Amino acid sequence: MGRLDEIVKKIENIDYSLEEETQRRHDNLTKPRGSLGRLEELAGKMVAITGNPAPPVANKVIFTMAGDHGVTEEGVSAYPKEVTPQMVHNFIKGGAGINVLARHTGARVVVVDMGVACDLEEHSSLVIKKVNYGTKNMAKGPAMSRNEAIKSIENGIEIFEEEYLKGIDIAGTGDMGIGNTTPSSAITSVITGKPVEDITGRGTGIDDGALSNKIAIIKKAIDMNKPDAKDAIDVLSKVGGFEIGGLTGIILGAAARKVPVVIDGFISGAAALIAYTLEPKVKDYMVAAHCSVERGHKAILDHIGLKPLLDLNLRLGEGTGAALGISIVEASVKILTEMATFKNAAVSEKR
Amino acid sequence: MGRLDEIVKKIENIDYSLEEETQRRHDNLTKPRGSLGRLEELAGKMVAITGNPAPPVANKVIFTMAGDHGVTEEGVSAYPKEVTPQMVHNFIKGGAGINVLARHTGARVVVVDMGVACDLEEHSSLVIKKVNYGTKNMAKGPAMSRNEAIKSIENGIEIFEEEYLKGIDIAGTGDMGIGNTTPSSAITSVITGKPVEDITGRGTGIDDGALSNKIAIIKKAIDMNKPDAKDAIDVLSKVGGFEIGGLTGIILGAAARKVPVVIDGFISGAAALIAYTLEPKVKDYMVAAHCSVERGHKAILDHIGLKPLLDLNLRLGEGTGAALGISIVEASVKILTEMATFKNAAVSEKR
Repeated sequence: MGRLDEIVKKIENIDYSLEEETQRRHDNLTKPRGSLGRLEELAGKMVAITGNPAPPVANKVIFTMAGDHGVTEEGVSAYPKEVTPQMVHNFIKGGAGINVLARHTGARVVVVDMGVACDLEEHSSLVIKKVNYGTKNMAKGPAMSRNEAIKSIENGIEIFEEEYLKGIDIAGTGDMGIGNTTPSSAITSVITGKPVEDITGRGTGIDDGALSNKIAIIKKAIDMNKPDAKDAIDVLSKVGGFEIGGLTGIILGAAARKVPVVIDGFISGAAALIAYTLEPKVKDYMVAAHCSVERGHKAILDHIGLKPLLDLNLRLGEGTGAALGISIVEASVKILTEMATFKNAAVSEKR
Repeated sequence: MGRLDEIVKKIENIDYSLEEETQRRHDNLTKPRGSLGRLEELAGKMVAITGNPAPPVANKVIFTMAGDHGVTEEGVSAYPKEVTPQMVHNFIKGGAGINVLARHTGARVVVVDMGVACDLEEHSSLVIKKVNYGTKNMAKGPAMSRNEAIKSIENGIEIFEEEYLKGIDIAGTGDMGIGNTTPSSAITSVITGKPVEDITGRGTGIDDGALSNKIAIIKKAIDMNKPDAKDAIDVLSKVGGFEIGGLTGIILGAAARKVPVVIDGFISGAAALIAYTLEPKVKDYMVAAHCSVERGHKAILDHIGLKPLLDLNLRLGEGTGAALGISIVEASVKILTEMATFKNAAVSEKR
């Protein structure tokens, strides 16, 4: 049994009875019952995931994984491919959106090269787990081999495990990869069964002509490669990406360790779809941070059955939405663990 | 000219040209244009309000104002009236929802007695600006005199000014007052013109029978007192509350000082309606933190033209939604001021 199967087998159902128990605790806090809405739900979920009545939220880690995409040669992105390594450099220097928002939330960012098309200089803040130098052009054949798809997920699991040793109470996912809304749309269409037109958006900002071309390219890639919707590894290998596989590994690794994982936007959502297809139990370990502008994202959330926390018209990726979402989750846990009860605050209860 | 007129006259239009300038700055940051959506809008608004290209967000202050309501004798609330002073005590001791979320956001809570029905013990963390010992029963006559309505707003302005001397970069509003969704619904119906049925909710959690009674009481109060929708002071005096007037003062005081003010839920929204009716320019100084479960809140947001940041099914009040909203505003400013530009990060721009 390979590393991947081993981890998938380790994923258990969360303890739903703890959600009810947490609701009873919430009902003793000095507020009308249910008046903190989704914060109460979230805290209940955190308890049920971790099995801890006072889930810690001190160690917050966002995994921002980078990869390149051969399909960019079809003109599917508004930005040139060299932006992927340039942005990795920006992450390392702390100047990107994810760095700013992770600092705001008090999260650590783990930057990973999963498959950038060039060699990146070694750096203490960069984890190199390169599967290959970018994917192949999926409009001309499979993006990667089946072995590479498995390897990308296993690399993600490995990174999670390495970081878990340093302490992770809550994880977040993030991506960087010029062109990666294209494989994400392909994955979404194949797994959810929605037409490509309905789940393909403008990514970093392409115009109408480029959008039509992008849709045609995605259709061509699906027609040519015929990914099997029931075989998530097949989908990942034929129309996926290395950072997407890596994030799938993070999600599976987190679920196996009973660590809540906050899913960012569309690309992270595609990784969540792969993870969910491999093992539906992962759903309960996931929190959807936000609903992206990228139109396929809603189809993903609906398919898995996740309700996003935020709707702020974000479409940057990198884990920026996850950073904001983690802060809301942390707030929910503090409500549960820090608020006074009716009894110890001597406040009268409902008549 | 009274203190209130003086402050209203001081409120100026924000500098919209700064919003455009800020957008140009955003467009130079290492992210696709507009990809941080509402965070970009928010930061633009912060710059336009303060006139500062790098608006400070260090001093965050939430004003949680308490008052009692004579109309509770009509059985409009699920909780007994003594909960108002009990909760003020809870605020002072730091055990309430607002204390937890304000700590999470790094905000200071200023707890104010605007009109609790009993004398509260003096405490270094409590500001006493009592206008009267609770309002009168608005189902039997005006809730307060016109002078008291003006005094409640002026007390709010005074508190803002006192705290402003200690430093306020961003303010938030919050309320506590058993029965206060009843005057808030009355204010909302009068000013927005919506039927009472459409904007009255369950408050802290009343059942169907009590909800019908609450609606009947609000209609009776409006019919009997005939508040003039165009005269905000008349509305506040006839069907308002002291904490609502106080929050109106906070909003006006903040706008006069060019300090952004994050509006919490329904009761804070009613205060915002009074402030907006007095001087529509205040709108641009307000950020709507969230959309409350309390159904009248949406009517308020639509009337003023505010789009809430969060939708988490909250209905606690106290400023809890404002605390979470302030954190999002702070994040937006950090994006603007801390992110690297394409130039200094050596990242290629869009083709």
